[in-house]
Amino acid sequence: MEEKIAQLKLLLNEISDLGGAQAVLGWDQQTYMPPGGAEARGEQLSTLAKITHDKFVSDEIGSLLQDLVPYANSLDPDSNDARLIHVANREFKKQKNVSSEWVAEFAQVTAIGQEAWVTARSESKFSIFQPHLEKIVQLRRQYADFFKPYDHIYDPLLDDYEPGLKTSEVQEIFSKLRTEQVALIKAISEKPQVDDSFLKVTLDEQRQWDFGVEVITRFGYDWKRGRQDKAAHPFTTSFGSDDVRITTRFLPNSGSSALFSTMHECGHALYEQGINPALRRTLLMNGASMALHESQSRMWENLVGRSKEFWTCFYSRFQNLFSDILGTVSLDDFYRGINKVVPSLIRVESDEATYNLHIMLRMELEIALMEGTLAVKDLPDAWNSKMKEYLGVVPPDDAQGVLQDIHWSGGSMGYFPTYALGNLVSVQLWEKIHEDIPAIGSQIRNGEFSDLLGWLREKVHTHGAKFDPQDMVMRITGSKITPEPYLRYLNQKYSEIYNL
Amino acid sequence: MEEKIAQLKLLLNEISDLGGAQAVLGWDQQTYMPPGGAEARGEQLSTLAKITHDKFVSDEIGSLLQDLVPYANSLDPDSNDARLIHVANREFKKQKNVSSEWVAEFAQVTAIGQEAWVTARSESKFSIFQPHLEKIVQLRRQYADFFKPYDHIYDPLLDDYEPGLKTSEVQEIFSKLRTEQVALIKAISEKPQVDDSFLKVTLDEQRQWDFGVEVITRFGYDWKRGRQDKAAHPFTTSFGSDDVRITTRFLPNSGSSALFSTMHECGHALYEQGINPALRRTLLMNGASMALHESQSRMWENLVGRSKEFWTCFYSRFQNLFSDILGTVSLDDFYRGINKVVPSLIRVESDEATYNLHIMLRMELEIALMEGTLAVKDLPDAWNSKMKEYLGVVPPDDAQGVLQDIHWSGGSMGYFPTYALGNLVSVQLWEKIHEDIPAIGSQIRNGEFSDLLGWLREKVHTHGAKFDPQDMVMRITGSKITPEPYLRYLNQKYSEIYNL
Repeated sequence: MEEKIAQLKLLLNEISDLGGAQAVLGWDQQTYMPPGGAEARGEQLSTLAKITHDKFVSDEIGSLLQDLVPYANSLDPDSNDARLIHVANREFKKQKNVSSEWVAEFAQVTAIGQEAWVTARSESKFSIFQPHLEKIVQLRRQYADFFKPYDHIYDPLLDDYEPGLKTSEVQEIFSKLRTEQVALIKAISEKPQVDDSFLKVTLDEQRQWDFGVEVITRFGYDWKRGRQDKAAHPFTTSFGSDDVRITTRFLPNSGSSALFSTMHECGHALYEQGINPALRRTLLMNGASMALHESQSRMWENLVGRSKEFWTCFYSRFQNLFSDILGTVSLDDFYRGINKVVPSLIRVESDEATYNLHIMLRMELEIALMEGTLAVKDLPDAWNSKMKEYLGVVPPDDAQGVLQDIHWSGGSMGYFPTYALGNLVSVQLWEKIHEDIPAIGSQIRNGEFSDLLGWLREKVHTHGAKFDPQDMVMRITGSKITPEPYLRYLNQKYSEIYNL
Repeated sequence: MEEKIAQLKLLLNEISDLGGAQAVLGWDQQTYMPPGGAEARGEQLSTLAKITHDKFVSDEIGSLLQDLVPYANSLDPDSNDARLIHVANREFKKQKNVSSEWVAEFAQVTAIGQEAWVTARSESKFSIFQPHLEKIVQLRRQYADFFKPYDHIYDPLLDDYEPGLKTSEVQEIFSKLRTEQVALIKAISEKPQVDDSFLKVTLDEQRQWDFGVEVITRFGYDWKRGRQDKAAHPFTTSFGSDDVRITTRFLPNSGSSALFSTMHECGHALYEQGINPALRRTLLMNGASMALHESQSRMWENLVGRSKEFWTCFYSRFQNLFSDILGTVSLDDFYRGINKVVPSLIRVESDEATYNLHIMLRMELEIALMEGTLAVKDLPDAWNSKMKEYLGVVPPDDAQGVLQDIHWSGGSMGYFPTYALGNLVSVQLWEKIHEDIPAIGSQIRNGEFSDLLGWLREKVHTHGAKFDPQDMVMRITGSKITPEPYLRYLNQKYSEIYNL
């Protein structure tokens, strides 16, 4: 059996290398690729995706797994080998359902789709993107059909990002969240609004860049094993845990956007940089799920980065950098400004109280697209009317509406819900962190993050994708993913800021 | 047969995509990859190289070629299909000799080797690079042995860069070149030296960058299908003809180095951008050989870029940009300065009269390493004594000596001779261009390059790798690769500059 495990790992190494190569091509596509490169890039990604898929669902891996799964049951169930065999077997069974033609076509269509989205968004013309999205939705419906019978057509999509989670479970969580968040937003709207005019400014890019670098270096981001570049839509990508890259963007009239984006992506990157090296070149060299991943990015962006403690340490430095604008703004006013709650158009710029509503909207639209009750051509109208219903605002154009996110152009459907789930998990972990590190607040006030990072490394990062997300959250917090801690956090934070 | 050709092309498309992916990974490695990424990058490149090799030497391609080669003989021998079949067959037969384990190991060793070289060069410590180079030489000797019996152990290496050319042919050309170039250098050394002190300065990087961009835009470089970045060792790479990237570097105390490097790489890039799109995703989507490639880079760098005509157009602009240094330097003095002949340490910075001697030195060392008459540990001494013998100068450290070039670290042995051959071909073409475009001199004086580029596109670029290099040069100039035109060019140019 030792030989068979070694052989399985060897084959998985190849799959992992191919995945890394695709990630490099994807990173380049979003950072430096000239426009002419799009077609060939689509072909390269398509070929790599097809080869990866064919190699993974090979008879050789199939027969190794057949022998190894019973053997894994005799091992310590938490051992790396046992978990690798189980996760590989789960993914093998899934991917075995999917045709290699579909994989190649999907990679090609989404590579081209991303370029179309870039153009469509910059010209704010949904019609440029529409035919691509139609093809993508069609491919995603085909994909779901590979997994028939399913409880819900959205389940197979969600499962790719959140292994084991069902659409109905998410809907139940969201329905509770929605009621309470809407009530909170309403309560806030009845109070005097805080001032954030000092954030609606265009700041010097280099200074923003430098401050962001300073902050995430303090967080613990390892620059020898990563780098930061600019991209239209910030993201983190990893080619093994020793090359984990982040991106950021600078927006006009938004003085804190790049900073929070950098902290957010750093949260993702710290996760990837912290995975146990023993898991390298295997399927487990990943986050446990997108919700777990997002719990890390949102923790560093919000629970740390938008906290009074953080700015107690960093505000004077930030204020000095931009003294022409912030010279007369007090720490308290700044803190309230960066935490202003107001229904707005752009998800990634939205505050913690309204953010999840952006997600619910996307999930409902995705489900409608998948069920076939909404046509792609009607998507902009559906988007706008849901924005009106959920948030009371209507985008003036598609760039600030339906075209704002890159995800659909890359074929990511079923991904959005994990953002809201990530918020929930971040606070579930946060409560546990406060139990385990009582001094956490004063540490952050002193700009010390090593205990926090150490805790996350030990409890979350090091395990990579060994455990299923719900199991992982349960192991750490004693509960599955649940909305109560997040709602407690929101209510407490905003009660103080808005005197509710 | 139509079906079989279509099937062959489909399989070659995959190979081409894999090649493109490897090129992206290589580009990233030399431009933006953080140091921690080296190990995983080696693994990724190794896996891709192995998969590419295995797919190329597959029985499927073998049996298609067996049927198609006789059929190709019935086609127009210059047709794309006939040439594709012949070139594919030639490469198939070659690669069939090479084991897939060798390919994987070579990719891994050279990826790591490149990182070691970067460190070794920056610390000027050959010992850091030595064990890597020993491994590389060992692998290269193994490689040659795959092709036994050979006339010369260096032949299989040379053939990778210059299909069909033999070591003995190169040696014959070089022996003639060497005698005459040494005589020329001696004649020059007896004349009063020209002044180039105004070039031994450190210029503002951004202005150098901008001027280089301005120049190569005029040459015809298509920025929608390319980009320029910085790299330790400038290079050009292509991921299909619609994404052809160049790199440059800025040196202290060398005011024109980056500019000539940019023009050089642009010459390579114009070649790749000009290949007939009908050849895309096939083996023919490449230059005909490295000598042909180098003929293009050296033509734009030297025959254009170091000509009086070019600077007649561009000097006042350049002078204005750096008026504090060049304000009092006349066009004639500037022209003489950029063409100063002086034996020097660094190949890529050397003048046209001494350049080929740098190449001969490398070729002789490579042959000695391959023949086993020189041990890697003795290479720095051998380098230094050959520098003394050929050029009369001795490097003060290994960074300026044996460690100056990236090539060996990437496993490129047999490549260097093509640089000198490229010089020869560039002037063979240049003489023909003057016959076909009598106004070429005045066009360049006016900054007009479209006739020149058009000629190169039609005669050279569009054909990609359809024709063998010697055949190609013969078709265009009526002669094989020969040293006389280059020697004529050198003698005429320097007779005027140095009053010989």
